Amino acid sequence: MRTLIAEVNISEGTNLDVVNQVKAALLEGGNIELVDLNSDKDHNRSVFTYKGEPEAVLEGTKRLSKKAIELIDMSVQKGSHPRMGAIDVVPFIPVKNVTTEEAIAISKEYGKYLGSLGVPVYYYEDSATCDDRKLLPKIRKGQYEALPEKMKDPMWIPDEGPHEFNPKSGATVTGARFPLIAFNINLDTQDIEIGNKIVKAVRGAAGGFQYVRAIALDLPEKKMIQVSMNLTNYVKNPIHRIYETIKSELTRYNVNIVNTELVGPVPVYALEEILKFYIKVNDDFTSEQIYF
Amino acid sequence: MRTLIAEVNISEGTNLDVVNQVKAALLEGGNIELVDLNSDKDHNRSVFTYKGEPEAVLEGTKRLSKKAIELIDMSVQKGSHPRMGAIDVVPFIPVKNVTTEEAIAISKEYGKYLGSLGVPVYYYEDSATCDDRKLLPKIRKGQYEALPEKMKDPMWIPDEGPHEFNPKSGATVTGARFPLIAFNINLDTQDIEIGNKIVKAVRGAAGGFQYVRAIALDLPEKKMIQVSMNLTNYVKNPIHRIYETIKSELTRYNVNIVNTELVGPVPVYALEEILKFYIKVNDDFTSEQIYF
Repeated sequence: MRTLIAEVNISEGTNLDVVNQVKAALLEGGNIELVDLNSDKDHNRSVFTYKGEPEAVLEGTKRLSKKAIELIDMSVQKGSHPRMGAIDVVPFIPVKNVTTEEAIAISKEYGKYLGSLGVPVYYYEDSATCDDRKLLPKIRKGQYEALPEKMKDPMWIPDEGPHEFNPKSGATVTGARFPLIAFNINLDTQDIEIGNKIVKAVRGAAGGFQYVRAIALDLPEKKMIQVSMNLTNYVKNPIHRIYETIKSELTRYNVNIVNTELVGPVPVYALEEILKFYIKVNDDFTSEQIYF
Repeated sequence: MRTLIAEVNISEGTNLDVVNQVKAALLEGGNIELVDLNSDKDHNRSVFTYKGEPEAVLEGTKRLSKKAIELIDMSVQKGSHPRMGAIDVVPFIPVKNVTTEEAIAISKEYGKYLGSLGVPVYYYEDSATCDDRKLLPKIRKGQYEALPEKMKDPMWIPDEGPHEFNPKSGATVTGARFPLIAFNINLDTQDIEIGNKIVKAVRGAAGGFQYVRAIALDLPEKKMIQVSMNLTNYVKNPIHRIYETIKSELTRYNVNIVNTELVGPVPVYALEEILKFYIKVNDDFTSEQIYF
């Protein structure tokens, strides 16, 4: 079995009739599983999280998108969440037996489809066509309202679809990204210098583990220093390796780990690695054995 | 959120129309989640695994049972799987924020209900009314065919329902049991004596951990000794503690753990313990953060 996750953000969270029609279009094929649907009235935004075989997820995302651009009109849309399109952001996240390359290919097929429907498309994250387009906030800066001017700038020619502003649908950002794990390690010291040294040891940008983003934070109330991290590739830089490296580095300062925090969603496959490292579970074990 | 799992075994796996009607009755309430439905023609048996809030699971199990005893006639039932009733075995498994005591209470409410429908009921595992009724094979010995004679024996007076044989429905076994984890540890030795010493150190019956059943097995093809275990309460005797104890005991024999095996289903809550022990994840972390 192969699993790809899509996390589609649409700019409608108030009119639940629209949300339900979009949902019905998504689920028409019967071969994807809706993991979560979150509609927020203040944000006027809904996030569909679903998974399935890569092809099924691609087809479902196409159906969802066609319905959403039919029903949502950005020229009258209001909401507190930053957005630039009726279909705002569509990350494809490879979680099982799917490579990043395959997820990039899926995102590009999707981008081409959306472009063919008249929506300007920008690729981001692992699908980005240049460094300036890696990160969502940079692409979305100025939001929907800035698009007419922004699209005239040669720097912001869309990767797919028309080069002209589409008032009804705005523009869409899509791409492949690996599941991100937010992992914090709290130290029994108040010396930020020790935190900074740990950050230097593990952080990708400082020459450490390539897929680790890290900063040291002072937590004065808890009287601790926190090494706050995003692990952007838990296969190449698994949790246990980061934990054990930091634990080992701390010995020279006589500092201990008080506890750690796993914040937000954690893919079960990252936990499989922990079982394999710490209690030597053999390769016959699969995540499908785990139940809730 | 509280979660109770029920794993209902009915003696019909051939006529899928019957299975579907039973399934429809179960799902009528809309408030339980069917995790798995497995119908086996040779066994002529279906296993419904579902979960939800304890009250919802109880009500669903009642609906399922009423329909099943209406449609299944044990006097003409044939199949290769041992069975003694139309509804054969109904374990209730507490998995989240539900105590064993609550699961026992649910099983007894269910037993009373089934008894009121005219089905003789025996309580087993944690709900057993005496030691002789703890284990399913002992209660089910002789199967359906033995029931008319067996029920005349004062030792086998049912816990609920009529004391007379019910030819259409047979008898049902129900009770609470904790999720069981099958955990094997493979040692880089061929000396079964070392395996036996490890078993002695950890096995409940030998004075070790109360909820550990263990035997030592010779694996001549792999040239290893296996300590094969069932952990019957992963809260009181968690996986990591068994692993670390065995690892520590092995040092005196200069023997190492080659690898381990987690066989069959593993509740995610048991993995939470592993995260907490090995990488000190704090108590803010919940299994709901884990996704597949």
